[in-house]
Amino acid sequence: MTGYPTSIGSSDESSIHLLGQDLAQDLLGQVGFAELAFWLVALRRPTPAELRVFEAVLVALADHGLTPSAIAARLTLTGAPESVQGALAAGLLGGGSRYLGVTEDAGRFLTAAVAAYDRTGADRPTTEDGWDEVARAAIRGQRAGGRYVPGLGHPEHKLGDPRTPVLMRIAVEEGLFGPHLQLFAAVGRVHPELLGRRLPLNGAGACGAALCDLGFPVGILRGFALLARTAGLLGHLAEELRRPIAQALSDDVRRATDYQPPGTSGV
Amino acid sequence: MTGYPTSIGSSDESSIHLLGQDLAQDLLGQVGFAELAFWLVALRRPTPAELRVFEAVLVALADHGLTPSAIAARLTLTGAPESVQGALAAGLLGGGSRYLGVTEDAGRFLTAAVAAYDRTGADRPTTEDGWDEVARAAIRGQRAGGRYVPGLGHPEHKLGDPRTPVLMRIAVEEGLFGPHLQLFAAVGRVHPELLGRRLPLNGAGACGAALCDLGFPVGILRGFALLARTAGLLGHLAEELRRPIAQALSDDVRRATDYQPPGTSGV
Amino acid sequence: MTGYPTSIGSSDESSIHLLGQDLAQDLLGQVGFAELAFWLVALRRPTPAELRVFEAVLVALADHGLTPSAIAARLTLTGAPESVQGALAAGLLGGGSRYLGVTEDAGRFLTAAVAAYDRTGADRPTTEDGWDEVARAAIRGQRAGGRYVPGLGHPEHKLGDPRTPVLMRIAVEEGLFGPHLQLFAAVGRVHPELLGRRLPLNGAGACGAALCDLGFPVGILRGFALLARTAGLLGHLAEELRRPIAQALSDDVRRATDYQPPGTSGV
Amino acid sequence: MTGYPTSIGSSDESSIHLLGQDLAQDLLGQVGFAELAFWLVALRRPTPAELRVFEAVLVALADHGLTPSAIAARLTLTGAPESVQGALAAGLLGGGSRYLGVTEDAGRFLTAAVAAYDRTGADRPTTEDGWDEVARAAIRGQRAGGRYVPGLGHPEHKLGDPRTPVLMRIAVEEGLFGPHLQLFAAVGRVHPELLGRRLPLNGAGACGAALCDLGFPVGILRGFALLARTAGLLGHLAEELRRPIAQALSDDVRRATDYQPPGTSGV
Repeated sequence: MTGYPTSIGSSDESSIHLLGQDLAQDLLGQVGFAELAFWLVALRRPTPAELRVFEAVLVALADHGLTPSAIAARLTLTGAPESVQGALAAGLLGGGSRYLGVTEDAGRFLTAAVAAYDRTGADRPTTEDGWDEVARAAIRGQRAGGRYVPGLGHPEHKLGDPRTPVLMRIAVEEGLFGPHLQLFAAVGRVHPELLGRRLPLNGAGACGAALCDLGFPVGILRGFALLARTAGLLGHLAEELRRPIAQALSDDVRRATDYQPPGTSGV
Repeated sequence: MTGYPTSIGSSDESSIHLLGQDLAQDLLGQVGFAELAFWLVALRRPTPAELRVFEAVLVALADHGLTPSAIAARLTLTGAPESVQGALAAGLLGGGSRYLGVTEDAGRFLTAAVAAYDRTGADRPTTEDGWDEVARAAIRGQRAGGRYVPGLGHPEHKLGDPRTPVLMRIAVEEGLFGPHLQLFAAVGRVHPELLGRRLPLNGAGACGAALCDLGFPVGILRGFALLARTAGLLGHLAEELRRPIAQALSDDVRRATDYQPPGTSGV
Repeated sequence: MTGYPTSIGSSDESSIHLLGQDLAQDLLGQVGFAELAFWLVALRRPTPAELRVFEAVLVALADHGLTPSAIAARLTLTGAPESVQGALAAGLLGGGSRYLGVTEDAGRFLTAAVAAYDRTGADRPTTEDGWDEVARAAIRGQRAGGRYVPGLGHPEHKLGDPRTPVLMRIAVEEGLFGPHLQLFAAVGRVHPELLGRRLPLNGAGACGAALCDLGFPVGILRGFALLARTAGLLGHLAEELRRPIAQALSDDVRRATDYQPPGTSGV
Repeated sequence: MTGYPTSIGSSDESSIHLLGQDLAQDLLGQVGFAELAFWLVALRRPTPAELRVFEAVLVALADHGLTPSAIAARLTLTGAPESVQGALAAGLLGGGSRYLGVTEDAGRFLTAAVAAYDRTGADRPTTEDGWDEVARAAIRGQRAGGRYVPGLGHPEHKLGDPRTPVLMRIAVEEGLFGPHLQLFAAVGRVHPELLGRRLPLNGAGACGAALCDLGFPVGILRGFALLARTAGLLGHLAEELRRPIAQALSDDVRRATDYQPPGTSGV
């Protein structure tokens, strides 16, 4: 069997190593959980500034009420109470392209636009006007390809996602308002002139921009959204154990079922 | 449709509420991620002391190298690279009774023993000798029922799990070395005289005891182990994206397959 | 790497072997899908009689309308339309001890009772009266242990599960009304005198009894219920793609949410 | 709560309806399991000819030995033996774009090519030469878009996938060698002149073509591959219960772990 390289962890009879540290001696009680999550993916310990932005992103994405994924987790626990892991997994499985994908899509869009700009050899803009130009080019590129502009719009927060300005302010406070957040803010400024209507910059997109400015590759962004959501789902499962609603919901659905035998429904 | 009560979160056009707080104004940048996870389950904000113990528990349970669940997550990503949520879910599904169950089993055992003692009306012990007596009764009860004593023994750390003494020290430092950890420590002292051999107190059991002393119901303990494991799995998935091993592992297994047609294998 | 024995399948450059057969030459077009599923678990090809009973069991367990697991699968597809496998997995994860467990629990109960009887050395009963005696002993044993009698009762079909008599009739027609179905029928006859009320023999329990009479170990019974349910879930997912209801359901739940900030709800 | 239309199933106190039929009276013992699966998705009962092709497709896709998904399912059962549904779900989650996607991708490619041809208003070809022309146009279109031609090539069966000719023969025997299989066969004939090398038509692609000729929409094709795989996974899980290999595999991986602390590995 070939050797399987890993930099995450290993253990032997007397010690457990994680990220090159001794778990018991160097990490327990000295490293926070979110700090460890950052470290596990980036393979470097975050600075206090990076950690504050990172935790704000996780908190922003942790929960959004009785979402489809929270409902799915609760329904699953009802059928398989012996398996909390199954209920949690069912909830996470709904965290795909449509709901949690925005964070990743926005990160991908912003990263590509910044990379395209860098390939021109020009220095990065130092003014909002400069970033506005980059944003116009990026938006035009999306539209030319028939693609939507990720990070714009929210089904509920039509006048503005309350998370976006706060996340941006925190990044500024910590000196981490980097190129991806700069560009994202510029998209918010210039899109009306190109799209003909004003849409809010949503929080999921802002989180994607902030994670890119923290140096994470876009391929893992959805993973952080899922980690955040895991905490929210735990809250829902703990509540379901205390005061269940899934059975009542299932009964309501059964009562509201409009059974249309095949051929009678035009389907 | 009946009303579905929830205390977790809700949102409207202009705001998102979580745990009775305004997510943007009261939580972002002011509450840590682990702090929020504690709050979501306990419905109360942890004290700094509680948070330090809680984060230590999550860090202790986050990863243990190339475990079956880490391998399953990596193999799943190889087959469905479009679905990070699927790979994460596959990894969590291995966090069941055998691997992550110890935390829950130990919590259940200790909680029942403390509750049984309290039903006698006697005051809680104030000395190690006093807790040793409670431990002897609890161990005898398990053996009488033909049940093993959860939290004892570890397949790899046969001489002692390095996480256990550090977790206990942190709980002592924070003034949170409560009845469940007291009893767990007593089990470590007295079990040899009853079981005829000395086994280490494992870290998963210590985490279960610490979580019970933080006031969490046993039914949710596995959930915290899964939250911790989610961070570890993210680390493995990020590494799999950087430097894959799952395909090589799968090829090795295929090469090592010993095909025994039915009837030829005595099965 | 050690050799990994398997009797299921293997392949090389020019052929694929399954169960010792050449997949292309011996199986395609000559073996049905349910026949193969039976063969994969039992490691022997079913007789036509066994196959008819087996297919009836799978058909009986395939679907039960808009169940929690069907709803969970549909909600998951809404959030992750790129991942049919995730939606299917979410639906199956609800197939645990509470919903699909009855098939397994009934099989376990009946297998243990038959085995206990056999240990007495007596010949198997040849009359209904004889089986009634075995049933009385088995029911008394459950009650003595404070356990319920699995296979009795149904939340909806209070006067009788329509699947049960038909499954029994099919087993009789095929000469496969074995000891487990005999005992299950006896439980249906004698339980009122011991439990003080008459409950229907549910279809899930009848399926468990039939699968035991087909020679399957109880540990895999839930797996067959899950295979059956997979077909039902596919029907729901195909319908969700044609005429979605999950988004409307999610919107209804959101509208019906009764948000109770912590501390205000008595929780 | 709005009414939720469904044509799959419903039940009341005395009966269970599925697809407009009475489950107990009309289906049990009279409809096969694969027949029901076809019916649940197509909302019509298959003809005997359609059923034979459909079952051949399911049998062809049921198992391929110790694949990543079979290994993941076995590893998951080891960690959570209480949850067969979790092990099955973990195995299915690996059935994504990379492994089971070929069936769907081939179906999508062939359906689009046939639709594009039909839009020309010309009658469907009646000769192989005619289909070869359609195939050339379709392959040129893929290459112009920088896309690969799905259904061509197999990592192991480099000289030919043994399932393909048999599946095609069965479709011919049953009078179901329709436009999608015709076009797929033509792709096999003409691709060398366009791609400069000869690749085998793989079985997953042939299954996709056959399912399209049966009238299924491409969006559900992966679902049938997953249904087929569920039977194979059950075989692996039943074997894992009889003669486990996952723990040994996990131990082998642990022994073969090449731990490279961050910073030492160039990653």
